[in-house]
Amino acid sequence: MTSEVAQLLEFLRFPSISTDTRFAGDVRACGEWLVEKSREIGLSAELHETPRHPVVIARNEHRPGRKHVLIYGHYDVQPVDPLNLWTSDPFQPEIRDGRIWARGATDNKGQMFAHLMGVAQTMATHGDLPVNLTFLFEGEEEIGSPHLAAFLENHREWLACDVIAVSDTGMVAPGVPTMGYGLRGITCGELVVRGPARDLHSGLFGGAVMNPATALGRLIASLHDAEGKVLIDGFYDDVRPLEAWEREMWAQVPGVGEADFLQVTGAPALFGEAGYSPAEQTWARPTAEVNGMGGGYQGEGSKTVLPAEAMAKFSFRLVPDQDPADIIEKVRRHFEKHCPPGVTIEFVPGHDGKAYHADPHGVFGKAAQRALQKAFGKEPVLIREGGSIPIIQSFREILGADTLLLGLALADAQIHSPNENFPVENFEAGIRLNQALLEELAAS
Amino acid sequence: MTSEVAQLLEFLRFPSISTDTRFAGDVRACGEWLVEKSREIGLSAELHETPRHPVVIARNEHRPGRKHVLIYGHYDVQPVDPLNLWTSDPFQPEIRDGRIWARGATDNKGQMFAHLMGVAQTMATHGDLPVNLTFLFEGEEEIGSPHLAAFLENHREWLACDVIAVSDTGMVAPGVPTMGYGLRGITCGELVVRGPARDLHSGLFGGAVMNPATALGRLIASLHDAEGKVLIDGFYDDVRPLEAWEREMWAQVPGVGEADFLQVTGAPALFGEAGYSPAEQTWARPTAEVNGMGGGYQGEGSKTVLPAEAMAKFSFRLVPDQDPADIIEKVRRHFEKHCPPGVTIEFVPGHDGKAYHADPHGVFGKAAQRALQKAFGKEPVLIREGGSIPIIQSFREILGADTLLLGLALADAQIHSPNENFPVENFEAGIRLNQALLEELAAS
Repeated sequence: MTSEVAQLLEFLRFPSISTDTRFAGDVRACGEWLVEKSREIGLSAELHETPRHPVVIARNEHRPGRKHVLIYGHYDVQPVDPLNLWTSDPFQPEIRDGRIWARGATDNKGQMFAHLMGVAQTMATHGDLPVNLTFLFEGEEEIGSPHLAAFLENHREWLACDVIAVSDTGMVAPGVPTMGYGLRGITCGELVVRGPARDLHSGLFGGAVMNPATALGRLIASLHDAEGKVLIDGFYDDVRPLEAWEREMWAQVPGVGEADFLQVTGAPALFGEAGYSPAEQTWARPTAEVNGMGGGYQGEGSKTVLPAEAMAKFSFRLVPDQDPADIIEKVRRHFEKHCPPGVTIEFVPGHDGKAYHADPHGVFGKAAQRALQKAFGKEPVLIREGGSIPIIQSFREILGADTLLLGLALADAQIHSPNENFPVENFEAGIRLNQALLEELAAS
Repeated sequence: MTSEVAQLLEFLRFPSISTDTRFAGDVRACGEWLVEKSREIGLSAELHETPRHPVVIARNEHRPGRKHVLIYGHYDVQPVDPLNLWTSDPFQPEIRDGRIWARGATDNKGQMFAHLMGVAQTMATHGDLPVNLTFLFEGEEEIGSPHLAAFLENHREWLACDVIAVSDTGMVAPGVPTMGYGLRGITCGELVVRGPARDLHSGLFGGAVMNPATALGRLIASLHDAEGKVLIDGFYDDVRPLEAWEREMWAQVPGVGEADFLQVTGAPALFGEAGYSPAEQTWARPTAEVNGMGGGYQGEGSKTVLPAEAMAKFSFRLVPDQDPADIIEKVRRHFEKHCPPGVTIEFVPGHDGKAYHADPHGVFGKAAQRALQKAFGKEPVLIREGGSIPIIQSFREILGADTLLLGLALADAQIHSPNENFPVENFEAGIRLNQALLEELAAS
């Protein structure tokens, strides 16, 4: 076992579960350990209080004329239940089959610690780094980063940087270096359809009034055509088309073909907007999804009621350059336009966030790709992701910098689940990646 | 207060709530009281055990050559919660504003007791009745008559009769004598739509798989056209068209116009199959209704999940001559035909029952109309009803006789709700109705 792996195992022993107040002391102890570790390797480091779990900031000595690189990670972890499904104790890390098994092994302790160990090696060899570096290690990512935006606002000038790097996303397949340059945005809303003043006897009144559940079904059906295209007026107006190089590259990316999507979703067949591959559909095309629906009697057996109301929760994944406020207004107008007779509707918008997109062929993007090539010995693939990471948008808005998504997580890492794991080789590649990344960013 | 009203109040004091085992003794005591009351007025009467609450049978002396008339009623009542909404104690009947206020006042003690008191008066005057009469008073109607069909089977020859009369339905408006000659049937089923193997992250996978809630919305939307017609292939094949006299009469019936339906349902507007009035839609046209639906996240806030499945419960109200088994098979085929790609469906049929229809212009129907005319001093209206009363079908199938539905309930009787009531004048009209009915049936 290398010294770096031994130190990671030490890090993984802290049960730094941020959501559970009983572990608040362990979260803090873990943060304090990180401060000590950062100081050991030659960085200046401090714990910064927030209303809940502290932020760790560690920096080398900043000198004029060098790029300022911020590397973000989080040292808090998800809960471990159900504990009985773990092969080994989540906080007594074990190495089996070339992987480290522990809660947080991939998400995010293993990935962020690779950066710290990369810096440690460079500092040990050269006494300094080629860039001005700031490590920002958060203790609240798994509870939605409630205090991070305020922390960024409060240290806006101190943290202002040229570029940000985050290793908290996925690799498309083992050994395939992966750079993410886009994330979908989101906007949400809840629709309530109301008809009669109360649940009615479906015998006495069925046939003479519009059933709100039927009306809701029609409204849901109005959202797509038979080929999966969203039918909301103007929905695609601001959608940035896929570029030719993206379609070409993604067609070659391993792990995201139709067979892969079929296997990982367990759906009987794939279905999506005609003319796009599953990767294109999930990374670069917007969606209209029902997240939940309900109305009337849902218990066992039957109750022949005509329900007074029915509701559905919707989310819309957005892509550049869709504006969440514009889209949710178009959705509202769509539902009003398609509302069947005999019912009224109420639509309440929920949370939202813009899509994220950074040119992968910019100066920093190219530097990151060279670093990935060096670390893995292979040409990296450039992808977007279908989900949303709200802090990335906060980084751009508050710190004015783009983020390089340099994920080291495998699809079977079991993050948020029992038996979370991280291959030792990914950890070691991450150390190499950090060293190459700082060199390439300095030279860019 | 007349002696008849005083006796009804005594009857109403029994808390004969059949669904609650704590009241089982009260149900029995109420049945025993009915036996005594029937004997008092000159009938032979007995309590007949069932696995739960007893049946009361009371008869005059049957003689050859007379019509055998069976009058059905039930002496059990609904629970009374929420008790705090009652103006007076549900089992301490009060007379206010010309109405008797008590649980069971209309449903069904008041209506059935009018028949008993009518018979009492005829017996007192003439020493006998003009027909062979059987009273069948059930104690389990409010729990779905679980043992009545078996009781009918076991006493098939003893109960075989020429015609049955039931006063357990509604009058279209106060003072308007109303004869029902039809009830809708029903068939039910539950549909489950399944997609991915588990709930998916709507960001990572949304856009590449069919959402089962969306698929369910489409299936629900496929059931009707924009004008409210059911689009299931062959659904209307066996529907008996409305007769001209029905449409003419129903257009004149008070209490069932558009304004009445709007008021009683509280819907913002009516909606139903084009070309039919609300009375026609609910009494003589079949329906396809969603009774309940659910899938995904229905709690507070949002959870951006793409649900693994969604379900809906459906009921279809049927009219003559639709066959429930045929219709549910057509429904199953419809869902299979319209199932969107990327999901699978499972459809499980539920309970069913045929529509009921008896010619109102037959010998007994005409006799009943003459009796209604005599009792109320007004021409009766002939209606069907939208609900289903399964025992009526059992009467026809087991006893081989049609049922005259001679309802005395008003729309604001609050049956099954707090402040149930029954106008004293309806009770007195019911007594007159019984006397006229037995005379007219005897003469028919």
